[in-house]
Amino acid sequence: MNNQDLLRDYMKEVTALVEASLSECLPSSWDVPANLRESMQYSLMAGGKRLRPLLVIAAAEALGGSREAALPVACAIEMIHTYSLIHDDLPAMDNDDYRRGKLTNHKVYGEAMAILAGDALLTHAFYSIVQAARGHQVPAEQVLNIVEDLSVLAGPKGMVGGQAADIEGEQGITDLDQLKYIHLHKTGDLIIFSLMAGGRIANATEEQLTALAAFGRHLGLAFQIQDDILDLTGDEEKLGKKTQSDVKQQKVTYPYFIGVEASISEVERLTQTAKKAITDANFAHPERLLEIADYLVKRDH
Amino acid sequence: MNNQDLLRDYMKEVTALVEASLSECLPSSWDVPANLRESMQYSLMAGGKRLRPLLVIAAAEALGGSREAALPVACAIEMIHTYSLIHDDLPAMDNDDYRRGKLTNHKVYGEAMAILAGDALLTHAFYSIVQAARGHQVPAEQVLNIVEDLSVLAGPKGMVGGQAADIEGEQGITDLDQLKYIHLHKTGDLIIFSLMAGGRIANATEEQLTALAAFGRHLGLAFQIQDDILDLTGDEEKLGKKTQSDVKQQKVTYPYFIGVEASISEVERLTQTAKKAITDANFAHPERLLEIADYLVKRDH
Repeated sequence: MNNQDLLRDYMKEVTALVEASLSECLPSSWDVPANLRESMQYSLMAGGKRLRPLLVIAAAEALGGSREAALPVACAIEMIHTYSLIHDDLPAMDNDDYRRGKLTNHKVYGEAMAILAGDALLTHAFYSIVQAARGHQVPAEQVLNIVEDLSVLAGPKGMVGGQAADIEGEQGITDLDQLKYIHLHKTGDLIIFSLMAGGRIANATEEQLTALAAFGRHLGLAFQIQDDILDLTGDEEKLGKKTQSDVKQQKVTYPYFIGVEASISEVERLTQTAKKAITDANFAHPERLLEIADYLVKRDH
Repeated sequence: MNNQDLLRDYMKEVTALVEASLSECLPSSWDVPANLRESMQYSLMAGGKRLRPLLVIAAAEALGGSREAALPVACAIEMIHTYSLIHDDLPAMDNDDYRRGKLTNHKVYGEAMAILAGDALLTHAFYSIVQAARGHQVPAEQVLNIVEDLSVLAGPKGMVGGQAADIEGEQGITDLDQLKYIHLHKTGDLIIFSLMAGGRIANATEEQLTALAAFGRHLGLAFQIQDDILDLTGDEEKLGKKTQSDVKQQKVTYPYFIGVEASISEVERLTQTAKKAITDANFAHPERLLEIADYLVKRDH
């Protein structure tokens, strides 16, 4: 098998593990109002690439850490990602009826329950993180650092800040810096978190954490620009959502500012810078992270 | 001075400390989109009784713990309470235009920003909790327990579960047990959290934590039934919101099921049970908690 096949197998294996673990996070025996549990589960188990959990696990393993110890945090970041999508799809926000080819949460469960399902997933993510310290031998100090990272990178200075800037920007993003701020925070910060959390689980040094953060920052931006490009050029079937929707809604994107060709070059440049951060640091097994970086920016969906 | 004056002075002092600390949590120098910060601040600094922070600090001090060490958690629980009010007031939920005599968050900043301000406060609350371990000598293991408690008591099994049951209940609460579930979780769980967190900061024993939780469970229910009673009988000026709104919206309350007189008796009974939990346990300074319990159920607003 070549590297690409090996990576595909690795991703399949990790995704299956994450799916199984996620479904255990919201057991049907749970003492929670049925509608709330179903609404949380509907969006959490709706598929998707499970990219962020993959990054948590790949980062932990790149430093010789254990996959099992990384799983609670891998599930947590998927809960955060899912809550952000549920709230983002609300009528007051992007007002989307479909996501990944399925009706959005509020179209099925109503707006009130969708707001609460998002709130519940956000809160429960912190519960899941704490479980890394329970029986997984991750020291409490390290788990507390992960809690703090998430509260910053998913909070007002992080992802929610990016969302807020995006909303303000709908009244007119005037320059590339503003768009970059949105991409870096709305998308990038959760990717940085995933990598750093994986590192912390494997007891990364400060230097290694800095390398993982730099990898995440550049990769996150590359990923989002790639998304902008795919949205402009991809075909509807592959993406499972209406393409050119950003154009129709007059949302400005990287190609809007610098053109498609320059955007493609920027993705390439950012990916190389990301990979260099890892190769310059001292990792036990850097290969998989590097392969994932290449895979992400060459994806067509 | 009599005990009532002493308690009033204590509450004034603690409230002033909490207000100052809360305003430092969202500094104007913060690197956060301006609208988001202002929206968070608007609701967080809108006054209110600061009851939950008071309980954190009073519980810590009842066990000989330090007020300063309790402050980050006191601020965190007020952020959680505030986020729940912002989301609760949204058009899709209770659709309220006023709260504490001021326009609700979404009436000032729009629905999208109100959703994000709530998300941001919820996430930032966990940041604030972690600060209890930074320079306040609360051990990481203990702070991690507080994080876990909050994720349960404010999450799908806790406060959000209560909210979800309340929303489902709007299609018809059929019995007192269902109403009790809503009260216990929607209101009670944050009160339980506040007391237990204060206890954990002061290194409470398991027995003391159990006593604080029992105190909180009974007091929280008494507090909410008292709210039901005040809403039915209070005058508009005192409450700063439309009274009998629950009746107009056909929301069922304790008095609706068992009458006003029996509700008043139930408040008294629950308060005595709450206080007994504390007097039966071994607390260094139980008096203030007992005084607060009496104060809360005798309040007229």
